[in-house]
Amino acid sequence: MNKQHFERIFADNSARFVEEWKEFLRFKSISTDPAYEEDCLLCASWVERHLQGLGFQTELIPTSGKPVVYAVINEGAKRPTVLYYGHYDVQPIDPIELWSSNPFEPELRDGRLYARGAQDNKGQTFYVLKAIESLQKEGKLDFPVKILLEGEEECSSPGITAALPTIRKKLKADILMVCDTGTVASQVASITMGLRGIAHFEARLSGIKRDLHSGVHGGLVKNPATEIARLVASLHDETGKVAVKGFYDNVKDIDPDDRALSNEFVISDDFYKGLIGVLPRGGESGFTASERRGFRPTVEVNGIFGGYQGQGSKTIIPSFAGVKISTRLVAGQDAKRILELVINHLKERAPKELTFEVTYSSVGGDALLLSSKSPVIQKAAPILQEIMGAKPIFLWEGASIPLVPALAEASGAEPLLVGFGLEEDNIHAPNESFALEQFKRGFLYVSMFLSQL
Amino acid sequence: MNKQHFERIFADNSARFVEEWKEFLRFKSISTDPAYEEDCLLCASWVERHLQGLGFQTELIPTSGKPVVYAVINEGAKRPTVLYYGHYDVQPIDPIELWSSNPFEPELRDGRLYARGAQDNKGQTFYVLKAIESLQKEGKLDFPVKILLEGEEECSSPGITAALPTIRKKLKADILMVCDTGTVASQVASITMGLRGIAHFEARLSGIKRDLHSGVHGGLVKNPATEIARLVASLHDETGKVAVKGFYDNVKDIDPDDRALSNEFVISDDFYKGLIGVLPRGGESGFTASERRGFRPTVEVNGIFGGYQGQGSKTIIPSFAGVKISTRLVAGQDAKRILELVINHLKERAPKELTFEVTYSSVGGDALLLSSKSPVIQKAAPILQEIMGAKPIFLWEGASIPLVPALAEASGAEPLLVGFGLEEDNIHAPNESFALEQFKRGFLYVSMFLSQL
Repeated sequence: MNKQHFERIFADNSARFVEEWKEFLRFKSISTDPAYEEDCLLCASWVERHLQGLGFQTELIPTSGKPVVYAVINEGAKRPTVLYYGHYDVQPIDPIELWSSNPFEPELRDGRLYARGAQDNKGQTFYVLKAIESLQKEGKLDFPVKILLEGEEECSSPGITAALPTIRKKLKADILMVCDTGTVASQVASITMGLRGIAHFEARLSGIKRDLHSGVHGGLVKNPATEIARLVASLHDETGKVAVKGFYDNVKDIDPDDRALSNEFVISDDFYKGLIGVLPRGGESGFTASERRGFRPTVEVNGIFGGYQGQGSKTIIPSFAGVKISTRLVAGQDAKRILELVINHLKERAPKELTFEVTYSSVGGDALLLSSKSPVIQKAAPILQEIMGAKPIFLWEGASIPLVPALAEASGAEPLLVGFGLEEDNIHAPNESFALEQFKRGFLYVSMFLSQL
Repeated sequence: MNKQHFERIFADNSARFVEEWKEFLRFKSISTDPAYEEDCLLCASWVERHLQGLGFQTELIPTSGKPVVYAVINEGAKRPTVLYYGHYDVQPIDPIELWSSNPFEPELRDGRLYARGAQDNKGQTFYVLKAIESLQKEGKLDFPVKILLEGEEECSSPGITAALPTIRKKLKADILMVCDTGTVASQVASITMGLRGIAHFEARLSGIKRDLHSGVHGGLVKNPATEIARLVASLHDETGKVAVKGFYDNVKDIDPDDRALSNEFVISDDFYKGLIGVLPRGGESGFTASERRGFRPTVEVNGIFGGYQGQGSKTIIPSFAGVKISTRLVAGQDAKRILELVINHLKERAPKELTFEVTYSSVGGDALLLSSKSPVIQKAAPILQEIMGAKPIFLWEGASIPLVPALAEASGAEPLLVGFGLEEDNIHAPNESFALEQFKRGFLYVSMFLSQL
C-alpha cells in the first residue's frame, strides 16, 4: 500500500481525528501537581475506553503513582509484535497569562492545534492510535500490537519504573515504537539513534558553624567555596576530558558508519552562536560537536553555590558550599557505577578539615545506542524518505529518556524512535501546538511502517 | 601619677560619667539608614558641644556624607601632639525583637550598660573624653590634643576618606590613638599591632543566552560554572599559597621578635574547633595560625554562584556563573596593584569562548603593621601591665580598618591601638553592652598614658 492510499484515508477522516484528539486534550492530566490527580485518572479511563473501541483488550495497571494504560490486540498472532510506548500526562501550564487560548480548550488556528499536550505526547500518540485504527478497519492489522501509556513521564516515570519487573511478560515484543521525539526541520524526518543515560547528585562541604569574618579567619580555615571549586576543577583535565578514574572504561568506540552519519547533519558554528550565544567549543577535544553530543559522556555542573550572592560585597568565609552535578552517559557505561566513581573522586579529594556530604543522588538510567544497521531502522528509513521526499536524518541525541533503554531491555524489542515534533511546537511552554501537517506525516509513517511489517 | 590616683578620680566621678555617656547613647546615629540622617547630625552637634565644654576649639567638617567632628586643644604647645580617632555613628538595631531593653534608652544591669553603641564606639570614645576632661581639670593637659570623630565608620568611611587630602594639615600629630579594638579576655589588655588591608571584586563568566538543557548541550559548550570553579582553583597552589604571579612581591619578612610575640598568644586547635567547628588548618603551610592571620595575605572566596540552587535537581548548564573574592593584604603590598594582579590572573585564564567581566571592584586600603619596638607601644605596654597586673598581649589581627593606615599616613603619627572591647559586648548585634569595669580600665589607660607623655 502506498503513500497515496493512506493520504486518502487521512483526508477522509481528518475532521473526525481532530475532534477526537481535542477530546483527549481536554483532560487536565498534569502529573506533577497533586491537584490534577482526578483529571489524570479520567484521562487514563478515556484513553482505555478509546482503545477498547478499537478492539483492544485493556487494563489499567496500578502503580505507586498514576495508573499505566495497557492494551493488546491480536495477542499470539505470529508476525512481529509491536509495542508502542507513550504517555498521557502533560506538563503544567504556568505561566498561564502567556497563553493566547485556554490550554485545555483546544483551538485550531492557521493549521495548528493549540493546547497543552497538543504535541507532547497526546498529539504524537494520537496519530499512532489513528493509524492503528485505520489499518484495523481495513482488516490489515493481523499482527500483535501492544500499547503502553504511562501517566508520569513528565515527572521521571517513578511508577512504571518500579512496576517494570512485574509487568515484564506483558511487554515482550519485537519492535519498540516511540513517537516522543522531534525532527530538525519540517521538510525532513529524523530517526533518533541514541539517547544518553543520566545520573545526578549534590555534594556539599560543610563543618564551619556560621559564616566567618574573612579578615579574622582568613588564612586560618579551609574556605568551603574555594575547596568546592578545587573539587569541581579536578573533574576535567586541560583537554576537556573527564578526569575521573575509570569513567571511560567500557565506553564503546564509535562505529565508523554511524560516526559518518552523525556528522552529515552539522549545525554551523555561526548558527549555533546566533542561537545560544557562544561557540560550540566545549567538551572533549578530538571529537566533532555531533560526536561529543551523541557518543561521548559528560560531567556538567548544574549549579554551584556558597556564601554571599547579593549585590555588592560581604567579606565572609562561607560556612558551607555545594555543587549540583549531572553526568550524561553513553553505551557501555553503567549509570550506578559512574555515579559512584564521580562521587568517590570528589570524596577522596575533599579536604579532611571539612565535612564532605552527598545531600542527594539519583540514577536516572543507562544510555540507548542504536545502529544504522538495525533492521527496523533499515525498514523505517525508506518509508520516511517516501513520505518526505528526502532522506531522513540520523540523530544521536544528547538528552535522556531514561525509561526507553529500560523498556528496550524489559521487552527485548528493537527500539524505533521517530517523531515529528518541531522547536516551534513550544512543548513544556505556553501556547503548545502541533501542526496538522506534522500530525498527518506521523499518521502516514505509522500506517506505512506497520502495513509493511 | 599612679593608678590609685586615677582610680580615685574615676570613683568620684563615675556616676556623672555614666549619665553623660547615656546622653551620648540616646542619639539614634545609625549611619547606614538615611532615615536617621537627622539623628546623626544631632549626635555630631551634641558631641561637638560636649568638647567645647572641655575647652576644645571645635568645628563640624562637612563631607560627602555625615559631618566629621574635629576638635583641638593647646594647639601649638610643644610636647607631642595626640590625635584621637573614633566614630559617633552606630550599627543598625535589627533584629529589634531580640533586644531585652530599648537600644536607645541605655539601661544599667549587673554592672553593664546596655545600648546600641555602648561599646562600639561611643563607649570607648567616651572614656577617652572623660580621661582628657579629668587631666584638663587637674591642669595636667599642657600638650596638644586633637579629636577626630567621623559619622560613617559603619559604612566604610566614604566621606572622611574623600576629605582626607583637604584636612591633612589639621591632622598632623605624633601619636594616633585609636580605641576601637578589643582584647581577648577581661584579665589582660591587648595592643593591636597590625591590621590587614583589603580589596574585593566580583567576576562573572557569561555569554550563554539562557540556561541550557544539560543533555542537548552537554559537551558542546564551555560550562560557566565549571569554568568559574577552574578559575577559582587556579588561585592557590597545593600548599595553600596564592598562585597569582607577583602577589607576594614586597611582602615584608616577619620581624623575628614580632613573630615570637605573635606566637605567645595561641588559641588551641581544640578551642578553635569548639568555637568555629573546624580546625585552623587552612591557608599557607609553613606558618603558624597566628602568623598566617597577622602577617600573611590571603585570597578568599566570599561567594560563588551559578545555575540551579533549589531543592533536588534541575539538569541545566547555567547561562552564567560568578564569584565574589576578597583579598587581605599585609605590609608592603599595594591594594590597588594586588587587586589588578588577581583580576588579571583570572582574566588571562578565562576561556575565550565565554565572556569574562568584573561586575564591581573596590580598593579598601592598605595594611597597617606596627612593631613591638615602636616608642609609643613601648610606652603603653608597662602602663597596661600596671593597670591589669599582667603583661599585655600583642595582637597582629587579620581584620581591616582601612581608615587607620590612611590616617597614620596623613597625620604622620605613630598609631597606638588599644581597646577594651570583649566578645561578650555583642557589638553589631542585639543587646550590645559594655562593662563599667572595662570602661574604667579604658579611662585609667588613657589617663595614665597621657599623663606620662
